[in-house]
Amino acid sequence: MTKSYFPNVEAVPFVGTKSLKAGLGFHYYNADEEVGGKKMRDWLRFSVAYWHTFGQKLDDIFGDGTAIRPWDGLTGMDLAKARVDAAFEFYDKLGVDFFCFHDRDIAPEADTLRETNKNIEEITDMFVDYQKTSHMKVLWNTANMFTNPRFVAGAASSPFADVFAYAAAQVKEGLDTAKKVGAENYVFWGGREGYESLLNTDMKREQDHLGRFFHMAADYAKEIGYTGQLLLEPKPKEPMMHQYDFDAATTIAFMKEYGLDGIYKLNLEGNHANLAGHTYQHEIRVARDAGLLGSLDANQGDKLIGWDLDQFPTDLYESTLAMYEVVENGGLGKGGLNFDAKPRRSSFTPEDMFYAHITGMDTFAAGLKVALRLKQDKVFEDFITERYSSYDSGVGAEIEAGKQSFKTLNELVLDKPQAALRGATKSGRWEELEATLNHYIVDTLK
Amino acid sequence: MTKSYFPNVEAVPFVGTKSLKAGLGFHYYNADEEVGGKKMRDWLRFSVAYWHTFGQKLDDIFGDGTAIRPWDGLTGMDLAKARVDAAFEFYDKLGVDFFCFHDRDIAPEADTLRETNKNIEEITDMFVDYQKTSHMKVLWNTANMFTNPRFVAGAASSPFADVFAYAAAQVKEGLDTAKKVGAENYVFWGGREGYESLLNTDMKREQDHLGRFFHMAADYAKEIGYTGQLLLEPKPKEPMMHQYDFDAATTIAFMKEYGLDGIYKLNLEGNHANLAGHTYQHEIRVARDAGLLGSLDANQGDKLIGWDLDQFPTDLYESTLAMYEVVENGGLGKGGLNFDAKPRRSSFTPEDMFYAHITGMDTFAAGLKVALRLKQDKVFEDFITERYSSYDSGVGAEIEAGKQSFKTLNELVLDKPQAALRGATKSGRWEELEATLNHYIVDTLK
Amino acid sequence: MTKSYFPNVEAVPFVGTKSLKAGLGFHYYNADEEVGGKKMRDWLRFSVAYWHTFGQKLDDIFGDGTAIRPWDGLTGMDLAKARVDAAFEFYDKLGVDFFCFHDRDIAPEADTLRETNKNIEEITDMFVDYQKTSHMKVLWNTANMFTNPRFVAGAASSPFADVFAYAAAQVKEGLDTAKKVGAENYVFWGGREGYESLLNTDMKREQDHLGRFFHMAADYAKEIGYTGQLLLEPKPKEPMMHQYDFDAATTIAFMKEYGLDGIYKLNLEGNHANLAGHTYQHEIRVARDAGLLGSLDANQGDKLIGWDLDQFPTDLYESTLAMYEVVENGGLGKGGLNFDAKPRRSSFTPEDMFYAHITGMDTFAAGLKVALRLKQDKVFEDFITERYSSYDSGVGAEIEAGKQSFKTLNELVLDKPQAALRGATKSGRWEELEATLNHYIVDTLK
Amino acid sequence: MTKSYFPNVEAVPFVGTKSLKAGLGFHYYNADEEVGGKKMRDWLRFSVAYWHTFGQKLDDIFGDGTAIRPWDGLTGMDLAKARVDAAFEFYDKLGVDFFCFHDRDIAPEADTLRETNKNIEEITDMFVDYQKTSHMKVLWNTANMFTNPRFVAGAASSPFADVFAYAAAQVKEGLDTAKKVGAENYVFWGGREGYESLLNTDMKREQDHLGRFFHMAADYAKEIGYTGQLLLEPKPKEPMMHQYDFDAATTIAFMKEYGLDGIYKLNLEGNHANLAGHTYQHEIRVARDAGLLGSLDANQGDKLIGWDLDQFPTDLYESTLAMYEVVENGGLGKGGLNFDAKPRRSSFTPEDMFYAHITGMDTFAAGLKVALRLKQDKVFEDFITERYSSYDSGVGAEIEAGKQSFKTLNELVLDKPQAALRGATKSGRWEELEATLNHYIVDTLK
Repeated sequence: MTKSYFPNVEAVPFVGTKSLKAGLGFHYYNADEEVGGKKMRDWLRFSVAYWHTFGQKLDDIFGDGTAIRPWDGLTGMDLAKARVDAAFEFYDKLGVDFFCFHDRDIAPEADTLRETNKNIEEITDMFVDYQKTSHMKVLWNTANMFTNPRFVAGAASSPFADVFAYAAAQVKEGLDTAKKVGAENYVFWGGREGYESLLNTDMKREQDHLGRFFHMAADYAKEIGYTGQLLLEPKPKEPMMHQYDFDAATTIAFMKEYGLDGIYKLNLEGNHANLAGHTYQHEIRVARDAGLLGSLDANQGDKLIGWDLDQFPTDLYESTLAMYEVVENGGLGKGGLNFDAKPRRSSFTPEDMFYAHITGMDTFAAGLKVALRLKQDKVFEDFITERYSSYDSGVGAEIEAGKQSFKTLNELVLDKPQAALRGATKSGRWEELEATLNHYIVDTLK
Repeated sequence: MTKSYFPNVEAVPFVGTKSLKAGLGFHYYNADEEVGGKKMRDWLRFSVAYWHTFGQKLDDIFGDGTAIRPWDGLTGMDLAKARVDAAFEFYDKLGVDFFCFHDRDIAPEADTLRETNKNIEEITDMFVDYQKTSHMKVLWNTANMFTNPRFVAGAASSPFADVFAYAAAQVKEGLDTAKKVGAENYVFWGGREGYESLLNTDMKREQDHLGRFFHMAADYAKEIGYTGQLLLEPKPKEPMMHQYDFDAATTIAFMKEYGLDGIYKLNLEGNHANLAGHTYQHEIRVARDAGLLGSLDANQGDKLIGWDLDQFPTDLYESTLAMYEVVENGGLGKGGLNFDAKPRRSSFTPEDMFYAHITGMDTFAAGLKVALRLKQDKVFEDFITERYSSYDSGVGAEIEAGKQSFKTLNELVLDKPQAALRGATKSGRWEELEATLNHYIVDTLK
Repeated sequence: MTKSYFPNVEAVPFVGTKSLKAGLGFHYYNADEEVGGKKMRDWLRFSVAYWHTFGQKLDDIFGDGTAIRPWDGLTGMDLAKARVDAAFEFYDKLGVDFFCFHDRDIAPEADTLRETNKNIEEITDMFVDYQKTSHMKVLWNTANMFTNPRFVAGAASSPFADVFAYAAAQVKEGLDTAKKVGAENYVFWGGREGYESLLNTDMKREQDHLGRFFHMAADYAKEIGYTGQLLLEPKPKEPMMHQYDFDAATTIAFMKEYGLDGIYKLNLEGNHANLAGHTYQHEIRVARDAGLLGSLDANQGDKLIGWDLDQFPTDLYESTLAMYEVVENGGLGKGGLNFDAKPRRSSFTPEDMFYAHITGMDTFAAGLKVALRLKQDKVFEDFITERYSSYDSGVGAEIEAGKQSFKTLNELVLDKPQAALRGATKSGRWEELEATLNHYIVDTLK
Repeated sequence: MTKSYFPNVEAVPFVGTKSLKAGLGFHYYNADEEVGGKKMRDWLRFSVAYWHTFGQKLDDIFGDGTAIRPWDGLTGMDLAKARVDAAFEFYDKLGVDFFCFHDRDIAPEADTLRETNKNIEEITDMFVDYQKTSHMKVLWNTANMFTNPRFVAGAASSPFADVFAYAAAQVKEGLDTAKKVGAENYVFWGGREGYESLLNTDMKREQDHLGRFFHMAADYAKEIGYTGQLLLEPKPKEPMMHQYDFDAATTIAFMKEYGLDGIYKLNLEGNHANLAGHTYQHEIRVARDAGLLGSLDANQGDKLIGWDLDQFPTDLYESTLAMYEVVENGGLGKGGLNFDAKPRRSSFTPEDMFYAHITGMDTFAAGLKVALRLKQDKVFEDFITERYSSYDSGVGAEIEAGKQSFKTLNELVLDKPQAALRGATKSGRWEELEATLNHYIVDTLK
């Protein structure tokens, strides 16, 4: 690399907690520091989202892009190539190990898929070259099947068979790409897979097509020997009024209905969780309990706002509780933490690209440290173990073992007075547990 | 019946659409009128909810009950019995065929379950007697496992085994009751089956217990020869911060995980749908597509309000689209339309009990008539058939038949220009369809 | 006009209610039909929104524009001029009397304001010419001060004085334009006047600047002799996290604080009302009670969706209740009903432009007819008069007249038993009134 | 006091940050520690809410009370008196200086107001006696005008004049009580002052009555020489569908309309802010900017939940930003921080009463410390000063001074190129500021 795109930024150092003002240094993320038996980089597997960081203009529905970027002025493949150089300089200076990308965001779309694929391949050749001389890996890639007008009514769930066919061909190229760049996962976010109105939608037929599509994808991956994990990413709405992969539970129902639960896992995002009425931790827990936790999109929303903000994570409560689930899961396996996040529209300078990622990485590194400490001290675990202890022996254990029935249980309680039954319950101690969580956050991060 | 509880109200007549002011007559519901090949009463199978209509005091979290009821002043079993007499007078005058009840709302709870059950049985004896001399049937009964403090942290999902045992015994009595009164369904609404905080909750263990509980219930029903349909009723939150049966899709995921989908079906409520971020029609469609549509709780919420209102249905759009799904389903089978609804706290007179039910019944009878007309004219059907027609032959049909793969589809589109693909999509005509819906509502109901 | 942009559409006729399917005809809107003492066109004063109808590409935050328009392919001033011709053909065929426009949406922005204004003036010259030969009037115009990146942190409330200055100059041109085209109102929608985070915002200073700005605008209007009504349009959020003109009440507080309530009135939008947690009727009522009802943006949202949809109005309940307020207000004076609405992204054909407007116009014409009938029959009025009658004489009247005090009222109730006080309240009859509303809608529109 | 109600709890000590698990000790609240020039107790002026702490049974709309309290079993005035003794023991052990109470929650309602007042006075005699031998003061008292059925449609805004009269008499007693016990403020929370449906409501007439009522109250306070601050407390909804004092801005509009803004100030609650779509900080800022910040109800909600939770505050972000506003305001004057909060329904033991208050007090004491540090280091202040500096001189200063007009500003920008204007804006640095906030929280609280 001869030209520098970020000449004013050095490799971001670990500076620790002495400085109070945020700046171009990590307060918590110390990549090679070992915590909980692993290096932080191996727990967190941070990934930069190519589309947001190198493609995003910071526009919104009411305004043009505000982003000032060192590649402003370039277009077409020149722009695409400049972004690759800038991206690998950015990764290097930031000190991450992974990146994620959409097909249409790395290279311009041409008039035919054949030409478009050629553009993509030229860019992914550059990726492969850079990977040879760096430690960078691809966490996942995916297909953008929501921007082009042809996807107005869905891709695999489009009412129009030609659009399904195009989507199939696009994902075929996506899986070929995944194999080529060694992507550890391949993601499907069904941005337009849903409906606008039931008055004009055959939901069942659309879902059948979707199920078929995911099987075709798995078949093709097998055929070419691509061994990365396939992932579905839920989101309840936006852009569609209702999206089929509403949340983790809905997606699991879909996977089970179409026999996909042995093949696919879930990629879960904080902001999407909130839009569905859930906490991020809830969604991760649902997936973890089902053995389907694949990877995480690390971002946050604002629960007072009803659309997708893709904010960089700053909330220590959310990062701690998300990482608590990750720790309980023994890590994320092939998954990682991808910053599906963009700087605020008002954070439009190139430096903000760094500030935003540093904030996000520190927030999750901090969350990891607190989560490990909570786990090590068994803070919640002990409370929970004690709370459910009536199921560890006696009648409770027999219930779990299937040795009790309505009849036998009826005998047990039929003559118990109210007071005895009420005495069986214990306080949940919400306030005390929340205060303890505060103390762990402060004490661990000081 | 010697004493009348509603001396000022006659049997509610069908008055038709001449009168504009609502009053003590039906404008649309004409029980024995045949529409779409069945009597209206058989399509709609309206049910009065005992707890709301005869138990509800119209209190809210900030205020005492406002209801003025003809049984005010009575207590204990005297009150319980007076309500039975009043209820059957009410059913008779209103002209419904079904009612639903909770165990704890028909009879007072005593100090032990044995004594409580005795109270219940005294009341259900009265039900059985009244049923002999009337056409009234029980649509479903259920167990109130959320009011008593012992259920503070759940019933079957309580962390405390004694509470599970009590819940089992309570549902045992509930199933015995169902058999005794000939209930066509038995419902489980898991009011407290959920969590307040993940800091103190073992969600997996709780769901395992819940799954176990539903199997025990099914086993017991089989054992006693109860052949009614077992139903689960989703609700996303309230009273708990997060309830396990969040919505139809989540409940289906749960049913599949625990092998319950061959045994249980769903009871779906309009207000619950909204609280989960869905339309009522969406929830019914999800269940219908899965072959799991059991019964409906006919009520509505206010989408600007974040808690459960249990309003009587008044919205013709919602009732039309809900009934459209019912018509598509060929009716509700053993299910029906239960008014899980209460008059507003300010509609506190005995007459409001009638006004509210009449409004609800007319709203759904109107919805039925519009739905049948829409179906008969194939208004949406034709549009949808045309919209998906590319899957009826050629490549589309081969996709559906499993005869295409990513490779073959790739060949098909690889050299298609953008314009060709865009031409494959057609307008969804949302505005036109909505206007047509308006015209059908007005023209059918005039 | 030699070239036709909509050759396949004739002037939209009034077809009445015989046809059930919506099409290219009005079912309810019959412009010259007299209802309630005025022609429908004079009650409704429908306006087409230039930006949505001729500028909108039907893109969303996840996708490119889907709109197929007869001017596709043109750019710059050629595009701008073609749109004018198309617009006046559209107005003519649709049969509306008014249009509204944003400055930046009628003509392209050049490098300096002077050049930009030249572009604008070229276009408004065309408007003026067309107005000479048609009945078309401008309901209002406004300045787009949210799209350009310079407005990233607001226009008049921007932290940067140069941006304030630019906004001032832009509105100066806007008011000059308003005078030139005879706009009956001039609107301010503060799309970016708000904040993203209080951590970096001096809210008081920003609001002081905003207050100053509105006074400068009023001063300038006076100076040039522009006598149209100045209007503020509330919206709670989007694009900003929090906007200063959150809703009608907030905007009124702001107007009173800065002495603007004698000068400005309100322009209220249905979708904005919902985003703020209100019904449309509520917002109109608040403005009407304050004597500040100026004009209406006739659109609707989806209360389950948390962002601005700008749907064309289809809901008869909302249009009836909005028009009820308009009727109570004796009409809208200089105001009108502007369709600040866009076809759904999937309604992308030129015909959908007509379908959408026809649907919206019919929905509001229907609402007007029902509202007039409700008013004529005093349906709600009589109920309300009776409900508050205790204030028409006796103690109630003395309270209103200021002749009672806490001391005198205390004497009155001190020894009244509970039962007597409870007897003072009467049922609100919500269910009955809602049913009556249904009957009026159906019977009036049949 | 001879009998102890909380024999197992000692006076709660300050234990500092060594212990990580929360328990019966303060980690941050050290009443007499001087911070920012004042004792913590004087900054925070913590108050216990009598109704929640001594009256609340921890019921919810779906369940009976779960609270286990040392006065269980008592009724009527015996219960009321026992609660007083328990309350003052609780205050003493907890170490607070203030309490707040509702009239109907300290003493049972009798059949007439005269008798009810007698009950109240017996209890307030006890308060006065206890105050003689303790440091306890009354932060505010209020009237419960929402629980009794007579208030079904409002109190001062009731459609029924007798209810207005009763409300007047009730507040008369409330103001007499305020004077008697030396309450520093008197609060009006209009729980039922709002509407359920506009179909049956004359909003203007109701608001006129409300305005009249507040003037009568102020007149009476003056007449009896009560010099405490009168406060209005906003809430957007619940129990009513729409409440007149929706939020701070709406209440300010109301106060200005009725000439009350020189007399009344605002009492603001965190959970109410969220229900209205705002952050707590936003509401406090609005009141502070208007010079109307009176007092605070310190609680929190869950932004994913649509009803009032009244949780004890645990969130350090919210307490820090709320206290930041308080610090900027130079403290709360006569106001304080009242815990309008109840333990979760599952935190039902007497010990939870202490845990909950300790958590709340620590959360706000921590927030105070962080806020003072942020203020001392001018973290946000310096950023904001710099951000708005273009208004400190030159054109910006002239704009503020009223020396510029649209004409002069037009001259200034008319020929400026786009790039120059864009260069006028600077990054808002949201991510960096959020990260800095995290560092300040951790470093201050360690």
